Amino acid sequence: MSRYFPTDAECGHHLIFGTVPIRTYAGDHLQLSFVDIPAHGVVDWHAHPNEQMGVVVRGRLTFFIGDEEKTLGEGEFYFIPGQMRHKVVGHEEPSQALDVFYPIRPEYC
Amino acid sequence: MSRYFPTDAECGHHLIFGTVPIRTYAGDHLQLSFVDIPAHGVVDWHAHPNEQMGVVVRGRLTFFIGDEEKTLGEGEFYFIPGQMRHKVVGHEEPSQALDVFYPIRPEYC
Repeated sequence: MSRYFPTDAECGHHLIFGTVPIRTYAGDHLQLSFVDIPAHGVVDWHAHPNEQMGVVVRGRLTFFIGDEEKTLGEGEFYFIPGQMRHKVVGHEEPSQALDVFYPIRPEYC
Repeated sequence: MSRYFPTDAECGHHLIFGTVPIRTYAGDHLQLSFVDIPAHGVVDWHAHPNEQMGVVVRGRLTFFIGDEEKTLGEGEFYFIPGQMRHKVVGHEEPSQALDVFYPIRPEYC
């Protein structure tokens, strides 16, 4: 096993909000979460103490963060401060995003 | 200006290692860096105190981390502990990766 290059089996695998699979890996302080959002998938309103940032990898996603809303395409960044309420909605095509958390969320390991 | 949804102009833009453009954005503790590696591009051996993780977004990249080496494809993760020496080498096609740093690297803002 390599600490630097996790295999798929060494990653965490979870299903969040009923329909959204994530693949995760934690370092010493950082945690990655590769998110597959199905067509019209929804990550409903929630908040957590962990800071979250990320990028849309494939497709488009509409983000609601606090009182702001924006549809992001491939390569676009988002920033969700700790404790800030947020929601993500997929469009007609499946999409992917890479989320990053600090500190690590133990429930996602 | 939105703190949550940076425009391209609001991101940092740097050229690292001579040929590798990066687009960056920092939150409160996390920093994203979207890296465009040209064909056969090289991010030569270096180290920094910041922890680094990331994912290959497009193409393939060969990572050298400490004494380990692995070629990663799209969606594969890597983890580089703080102070660990590392190097990245592109293949015949251009590629993209998303790097994440903790703590924030002021020189990349």
